[in-house]
Amino acid sequence: MKIGRRSLLKGTAIAGAAVAAAAASSFPAPAISQGTRQLKMVTTWPKNFPGLGTGAQRLADRITSGTEGRIEVKLFAAGELVPAFESFDAVSQGTADMYHAAEYYWQGKSKAFNFFATVPFGLTASEVDAWIYHAGGQELWDELGADFNLKPLMAGNTGVQWGGWFNKEMNSVEDFKGLKMRMPGLGGEVLRRVGATAIALPGGEIFPALQSGTIDATEWVGPWNDLAFGFYKITKYYYWPGFHEPGTVLSFGINKEVWESLSASDQSLFQTAAAAENSYVLAEFNARNSDALETLINEHGVQVRRVSDEMLNALGEASGQVVAEVGAEGGLTQRVFESLIAFRKKALAYDKLSNLAYGNARLLPFSYGS
Amino acid sequence: MKIGRRSLLKGTAIAGAAVAAAAASSFPAPAISQGTRQLKMVTTWPKNFPGLGTGAQRLADRITSGTEGRIEVKLFAAGELVPAFESFDAVSQGTADMYHAAEYYWQGKSKAFNFFATVPFGLTASEVDAWIYHAGGQELWDELGADFNLKPLMAGNTGVQWGGWFNKEMNSVEDFKGLKMRMPGLGGEVLRRVGATAIALPGGEIFPALQSGTIDATEWVGPWNDLAFGFYKITKYYYWPGFHEPGTVLSFGINKEVWESLSASDQSLFQTAAAAENSYVLAEFNARNSDALETLINEHGVQVRRVSDEMLNALGEASGQVVAEVGAEGGLTQRVFESLIAFRKKALAYDKLSNLAYGNARLLPFSYGS
Repeated sequence: MKIGRRSLLKGTAIAGAAVAAAAASSFPAPAISQGTRQLKMVTTWPKNFPGLGTGAQRLADRITSGTEGRIEVKLFAAGELVPAFESFDAVSQGTADMYHAAEYYWQGKSKAFNFFATVPFGLTASEVDAWIYHAGGQELWDELGADFNLKPLMAGNTGVQWGGWFNKEMNSVEDFKGLKMRMPGLGGEVLRRVGATAIALPGGEIFPALQSGTIDATEWVGPWNDLAFGFYKITKYYYWPGFHEPGTVLSFGINKEVWESLSASDQSLFQTAAAAENSYVLAEFNARNSDALETLINEHGVQVRRVSDEMLNALGEASGQVVAEVGAEGGLTQRVFESLIAFRKKALAYDKLSNLAYGNARLLPFSYGS
Repeated sequence: MKIGRRSLLKGTAIAGAAVAAAAASSFPAPAISQGTRQLKMVTTWPKNFPGLGTGAQRLADRITSGTEGRIEVKLFAAGELVPAFESFDAVSQGTADMYHAAEYYWQGKSKAFNFFATVPFGLTASEVDAWIYHAGGQELWDELGADFNLKPLMAGNTGVQWGGWFNKEMNSVEDFKGLKMRMPGLGGEVLRRVGATAIALPGGEIFPALQSGTIDATEWVGPWNDLAFGFYKITKYYYWPGFHEPGTVLSFGINKEVWESLSASDQSLFQTAAAAENSYVLAEFNARNSDALETLINEHGVQVRRVSDEMLNALGEASGQVVAEVGAEGGLTQRVFESLIAFRKKALAYDKLSNLAYGNARLLPFSYGS
């Protein structure tokens, strides 16, 4: 994915055209180094963090390579240019050109951002792709982004996340009472409804908080990512499935003036690069989670437990309330909610005849492959 | 996704470089028209067929636009340049530059191609992405493709397909005896094991065969695509879930000399464009199937039926045998089989804790969104 020497030479050869195009636009002159337009991408992830940081790097490389180096995207891990949760303001205000993050981190700006990351008991990865790409989601997201001087695109998905790491067995929804747990977005609000204290922390701050006892429990993503953070060193009970993040979108937010300064061709290339990572990142999670889970169980003595139906149902009831309350806020937030809920209803009905039916059929007792 | 006038002008401006690059390579001079390198993409789909033909067109447009028109991909529907099933030879031999198809159509060349489309009771769309992108699948596919002078890439997925259209109710696996059904790939071989006659036909030839009684039953893809072909006009029983194609890959096969004539940057762009469509096409199927199903039921009186567990289990047993027999052929086919089966085993175990667990949890009786 890195550009080769030959491409770099080509990039230099056509640099004059890029400079001329930049000068012709009304956009403030971008950073130009050796004939290349440089764009800064900030992220909410630790440097080279599996799937998240590496996915952001691949996205940057796809753009740099696809433009033959005319546009060079330079990536900054959380804290390198700005702290993780200041990525939004940095890009909105133009300190950075783009971010790679998850939109629920910006729910302080508008609760509507939650709907473009994931919501408790909401859409799966393939369903959210369907809603965003082909059922009106992108248009609503563009409208929300424009209010903050941003152009948003999907650039990855974690898939169904895990329920999290606990310092005790969780036998009933009552066990959430008094529990201090890291969980961002609306999932955190659901936890509050069942009596827990929910805290939003960027990934890099979770381990020390768990170690010091500031929190009793945490969720992050799933086996592959959670192994990397080493939560198994402190807590041993690992629960599935997560109710709170069934398909978290990794978002690529671009400063709107930067976006509008791009040629139609480069805009298309940015969209194509983001859509490619949307597929590639999810696939990487799906490829790595299984092996990581084996490592957690066999090498680190992790106890894997299923969240009971009683807990799931209570969390589902609270999730429905929390999501509906956000939706009742009116304005754009309500329109996004209504679009999402209408799509979810259809998706759920169809899932029963499709993925779910197939997944269950595959568990019938026939022998296979041996 | 179409390139604008401005991009076309830019394309013309840098055409000299493209011509020079082409002349410098040892590859026979490609078709150059108005300073643009033109590449011919043949497909196995009817013109603009939903999801398949339109996905191929978007892939072509992403490349044309992403290269600012330096490379212009021209699409040919089935029969326009060569008949659907001759696409493989056309690209392998260089009559065309690339194809958009499904690899099981080429099982006459090598049975191993089935594994890169879909196999009965095999991987879902997200699982096959994981295997191809991140667990050795692409490397094996490259090896197979190279034997036929091709570079293959994934460029879409249909998701879980439907069981098909029947002119009678299917109450038991015994009902397959004597049935003439359209089904390509290994699914067709499974049908033969349970007593049916299976026929492979390109999409455009199914309706007339069903109408004339040459076949009693057919599968194609799912509600969105099947509505477009109008099978409901002849048969009324529509069964779910399909056992035979749980996540069919749409493939982008490129003549290997054409591939090797591309710069590293353009190769990266082709890969990125194909990966973008891999996400985008599946999302479109997921967005459209639900509405199409409602139309089929409410406007066309289609009877939707579930394939019974007895039938699924018998078809599963036959599927396991058919897939294992292909795997026992030795050589590359066996290596692909072993890689796929090992991955499937892990994927299935993980699915139970992830997508399947979440999908089933979402059906608990809690209220949501109202």
